[in-house]
Amino acid sequence: MRVHIIGVGLIGGSFAVDIRNVFSEVQLVGVDNNPDHLQQALSLGIIDEIEEINDVRSSDLVIVAVPVDVSIPLIKQVLDLVEDQTLVIDTGSTKGKLCEALSTHPNRRNFLAAHPISGTEFSGPQAAVKDLYRNKTNIICEVEKTAFKLQERALELFQKLGMRICYMDPKSHDRHIAYVSHLSHISSFMLGKTVLEKEKDERNIFDLAGSGFASTVRLAKSSPAMWSPIFEQNKENVVEILKEYIQNLNMFKDLLENNDFEGVFNEMEKTNHIKSILNGII
Amino acid sequence: MRVHIIGVGLIGGSFAVDIRNVFSEVQLVGVDNNPDHLQQALSLGIIDEIEEINDVRSSDLVIVAVPVDVSIPLIKQVLDLVEDQTLVIDTGSTKGKLCEALSTHPNRRNFLAAHPISGTEFSGPQAAVKDLYRNKTNIICEVEKTAFKLQERALELFQKLGMRICYMDPKSHDRHIAYVSHLSHISSFMLGKTVLEKEKDERNIFDLAGSGFASTVRLAKSSPAMWSPIFEQNKENVVEILKEYIQNLNMFKDLLENNDFEGVFNEMEKTNHIKSILNGII
Repeated sequence: MRVHIIGVGLIGGSFAVDIRNVFSEVQLVGVDNNPDHLQQALSLGIIDEIEEINDVRSSDLVIVAVPVDVSIPLIKQVLDLVEDQTLVIDTGSTKGKLCEALSTHPNRRNFLAAHPISGTEFSGPQAAVKDLYRNKTNIICEVEKTAFKLQERALELFQKLGMRICYMDPKSHDRHIAYVSHLSHISSFMLGKTVLEKEKDERNIFDLAGSGFASTVRLAKSSPAMWSPIFEQNKENVVEILKEYIQNLNMFKDLLENNDFEGVFNEMEKTNHIKSILNGII
Repeated sequence: MRVHIIGVGLIGGSFAVDIRNVFSEVQLVGVDNNPDHLQQALSLGIIDEIEEINDVRSSDLVIVAVPVDVSIPLIKQVLDLVEDQTLVIDTGSTKGKLCEALSTHPNRRNFLAAHPISGTEFSGPQAAVKDLYRNKTNIICEVEKTAFKLQERALELFQKLGMRICYMDPKSHDRHIAYVSHLSHISSFMLGKTVLEKEKDERNIFDLAGSGFASTVRLAKSSPAMWSPIFEQNKENVVEILKEYIQNLNMFKDLLENNDFEGVFNEMEKTNHIKSILNGII
């Protein structure tokens, strides 16, 4: 099997590592506009060779793992090139604009829109790890638009990588993911900014901050090049949920300012049952 | 050595576990207004016996680990009872009001104000763990007000438990801790609330949320009985930093609404260097 990984960073690189692990006789080919990343991926043994985008023509499987603004024109270009047997899988964090843009492409049936809910705050080929996708949810959108035989091959891949599948339409995907992923990133980035601004002598953060702070600002390490286009494509949902978050923070601030500490207690207690939900998330 | 642990939950219980581990011939006595917690601590082997508050009279070491509203009258009561050799250590997350309230107590020299920056989102005796304090920062306030011999004993204890010491005045403590701990808890609780409100069908959170969401809302599992009095005692600092956080979130929302995605990118990139700071936090 000849597999092209377009974008050999955390997501694409981790797919490559797992694919090599579960398939015998696989040739992994890296495509990336960053030559340093390609060289790193090659020397780390993540890919076997380097090719250009035009060489995907005879691929069995193309995994696209690039920022979501790049992926729309890129996947169009890939679909222009590929033959009947080629399965093209996208892995981005927004699906609405992408599925719309590809809806009339003559080779739409070669494409499967997927979003593996997995990752870390790190990026680049060196961030690629084994089993990143094991026991993680993979959201698949508009599965009915993918050729039946290619659906089967995609599901075989995801199953071998240990993923749980969840089918969803692109609009619902973007809405739910705004709530449970995109908002967390904004919360984290702005928390980091707020504290950095106050603690100009940064050694204080280093010395005093515990694991709670580290946990809430962990996502502020994420790649701006990846996240800025996500927020752009999912702007409507993100702004809506961000407004509600700000409203809730203002409500909490008002309770504090009005010395309503029974209200403060109640707000925290009401949210406490998130425990039982979180226990299901790794 | 006879040690009284007042409040046998996560913090007090973990002190008991470590003290038993590093000192030979230690008798650990539990005091708590929750009889279930006392029985649990006894059956878990965290404490050796149960006593009343009045029995601290002849103690060598009293560790107070109760909510910060309870600790002020309670430590006064303990200081009323104790003899010259008794070291009383508090572990709470606010220091201003406490140090002020105790400043004129005739036995102020028996008391050491400490804040180990350590914990988890769990509570109760079953949450007590070994080595909770190893390599963690312990902030000590107004060390000069503690009797010299008792200072020495406290430092010996902290050293044996593997803690790093940081001296600070109570006002600075409360300000810095508002930034690097208290704000994170509000951010987390309100993020949990916002998403729970939107995702009324909670199975969606469970299925779609990844480790990023779990990380940012982890602190929303924390105990409201512990946190409500902390916010009350540190209200001024907490409201100030919360306002700045809300301001930054509004600024980010405005950038999104104005389609200024270069601005969005820049804001994230500026905060990205929190990486290098966070790498020092476990």
